[in-house]
This record gives sequence, structure tokens and C-alpha cells, in this order.
Amino acid sequence: MYEVSVIITAGGKGKRMGSSLPKQFMLIKDRPLLMHTIQRFYMYNPKWQLLVTLPEEWVNYWEELVVKYDFQIPHRIVTGGSERYHSIKNALEKCQGKIIAVHDGVRPMVSNDTIDHCFQAMKTRKAVVPVLQHKESIRSVSSGASRAEDRSRFRLVQTPQFFDAEVLMNAYTRPYGPEVTDDACLVEELGETVYLVKGNEENIKVTTKIDLVIAEHLL
Amino acid sequence: MYEVSVIITAGGKGKRMGSSLPKQFMLIKDRPLLMHTIQRFYMYNPKWQLLVTLPEEWVNYWEELVVKYDFQIPHRIVTGGSERYHSIKNALEKCQGKIIAVHDGVRPMVSNDTIDHCFQAMKTRKAVVPVLQHKESIRSVSSGASRAEDRSRFRLVQTPQFFDAEVLMNAYTRPYGPEVTDDACLVEELGETVYLVKGNEENIKVTTKIDLVIAEHLL
Repeated sequence: MYEVSVIITAGGKGKRMGSSLPKQFMLIKDRPLLMHTIQRFYMYNPKWQLLVTLPEEWVNYWEELVVKYDFQIPHRIVTGGSERYHSIKNALEKCQGKIIAVHDGVRPMVSNDTIDHCFQAMKTRKAVVPVLQHKESIRSVSSGASRAEDRSRFRLVQTPQFFDAEVLMNAYTRPYGPEVTDDACLVEELGETVYLVKGNEENIKVTTKIDLVIAEHLL
Repeated sequence: MYEVSVIITAGGKGKRMGSSLPKQFMLIKDRPLLMHTIQRFYMYNPKWQLLVTLPEEWVNYWEELVVKYDFQIPHRIVTGGSERYHSIKNALEKCQGKIIAVHDGVRPMVSNDTIDHCFQAMKTRKAVVPVLQHKESIRSVSSGASRAEDRSRFRLVQTPQFFDAEVLMNAYTRPYGPEVTDDACLVEELGETVYLVKGNEENIKVTTKIDLVIAEHLL
């Protein structure tokens, strides 16, 4: 039994960035991005269970990287399903924590404070996500038209998202729908309240070449 | 008469970044940030009228920078009022363009393409703003509770925002309200349709120290 299990999703197969190498394996500061991400959680608490979801066809490559970079942090590989939903479902079967955190593998700059804000809030909550306020104006669009929205009403959602294990497992017994991109939504549909804590500005999702440059510079 | 007048707003007085120097004057690549911004428009079309709004107490400082950095791009200084709204109102009195663009002085990385998308769209539209899709999940908050929103419905609004001069001037004859942070909203209240074009990802608003590092790296 662990206090916390962390599912780090690294299911990307490498299309969007115009490169055959999925972004979780790209080098930042001379190490694959995913190693930075894993390390963030290990540094916060080395006793947490770390699970990493990978596409089956990239598992061998990852294992070679682990040897090549002498990566010592204990973690368990779970092969992903066809979609993020299935990868998480696979990982949940291996989770032994009372609390489960789900984190994007391509967010290597999550801060110690962000992890701590989430974890501390879990003492009294069952679902906690880190968010940031918008710096830009926002418009909503529908059927070709758009209108201004009050940005103070909105928050940008980051990860890690923390859940009571029972609540998350319960949410994942529901059938898969392609609209599921966010675990907080799933849990919410079961009637759980999602509690918001402060994320960190550097905690960007690395999905483009520009993000990679930013990450390289900030790490 | 000019084809286009560009109002570049640089009214920041320097509080948010924990520094006494307003961010538009901070050095990026050995030049004040605002000079990069002005240059972007001059490079796109050197015949456009460029107006820069500055807080009155920083005008002398800017004039010293212009000499120190041998900044040759022609531009007219307009002193700002107490709020952004008043700065723009002052600038509008000097605008001679048939089209007026309003741009944040602290967005030095606006691309040629973004300016071009806006300007080309103005051939058939009266209000055009550049936007980007959200990469992150979004939640809305109200009275302590929050709920997931469909991010595909929302766009992040950038600048430059382009307007038919008559339309914008008309919008600014309305009395000032503190809720006015976006010119597109003002124009929209008069019944104009705001047309959206694609912005560029690098076109961030430099408001924090992290942004400054990113800008330094991307420029």
C-alpha cells in the first residue's frame, strides 16, 4: 500500500510536432523530457508509487533510454490503450495508493509547490486540480459568431489532478466516451466537487517546438 | 492621411513584476522591449502611422532611450491618461488612418503573418482580432463552485486588433467604464461583428519575469 500513486501519462505517439519522436522522449537539458517529469514527483516524495503509461511500441525504446541515461528512479511501466482513457484504466489496475494523482508526462516543470498544494488539499477533499487565471481576453465561438467573455470567470486547468482512489476508480468503471479528456470532468459527473488550488505558471504542457524551447530555457 | 494608424499602448507604470522599471522598457536582446514591438509594424509597412502611448512621467526616459539606442523608426508619443481607455482616447485624436490598429506594447513577438491576416481581413470587415485556440482544459468559476467547460468553444484573444477608424472612434465616444479592457468588446456593444483570424503562438503578452525570459529566448 502506498499513500499516493502517480499515473504519469506519456501515451503520445509523435505526430503533432512534425517529428517521428514523441515529445515525451525529446531531449531537454541533455535528458529525455519524461525523466524530468518523473523526477519532479520523486523529489517531492520518494515513497510514492510512480506509474508511467507508454505506447506499447515505445516501451523498448524507453528501456534503452533508462539504461543510456542511467535513470535510477523506480517507476512501473504500463502500456497504453488506444486512447488516454484506456491507458489510465490500465494503470488504475496497478495503483496501490489511497490517493491517485494523474499527471501529463509532458509537463516537466510542475513545481514542488503545485504538488504540495494539491496533496495538502486532499486531506479534506476528494478531487483537487491546480489552475491558473487567464492573462488574455477570452472569446467564445458558436456557429460562426463569437462574443467576449469575462476572463475572471475562467481558469486554465493544469495537472497533476489528485483524487481519492475509490472515487477515480469508480469514475473509470463508466463506459468510454471520446469526449473524456479530463479526469476531473469524469469525477464531476459522479457528483463529486472538484476543488481548485493554485498551479504554477511554468507548468506548461509541451506540445509544440516553441514549448520545447521554453522548457529548455526554464528547466 | 495614412492607410493605417497603429496605436501601441505602453502605459504600464511598473508594479506587477516587482521592479520599478515598467516592462515595456526592459531590455531584450540588448534593446528595450518596446523598440522590438514598434519595429514589427514598421517592418510590415513603413508607411503606417505609429503612435505610442506612454505615461507622462516616463516620456523623458523614453526619449533618452531613443537617443541612447539610436532608434530611428518614426513614431509619435501620446501621453496616457489614468487608464488604458483614456490613453487610447488621447491617441485617437492624433490618428489619421482609415484603419486603426491597437496593439499591446508588451507583445514584441507579433508575427508578420498575424499583422497580415488582420490587415487583409479588413478589406471586407470592420473589426478584426487575432486569436488562438486553448491548449489547456478550462473551468468556469462562480460563487465558490467550478465546472468544466468545452475548450473548443473558447479562443484566447491577442492583439493587434484592427478597426475601421470611424467605428472605433464612435465606440470611444461612449463614457468610460472600468470594465473596458478590450477594444473589440467596446465595438461589439455598438452592434459591430468582430471577425477572428489566426494569431501566432509566440505573440505572448510579457507581464511576468518568466515571460521576459521566454521573449529573450524567442526573439
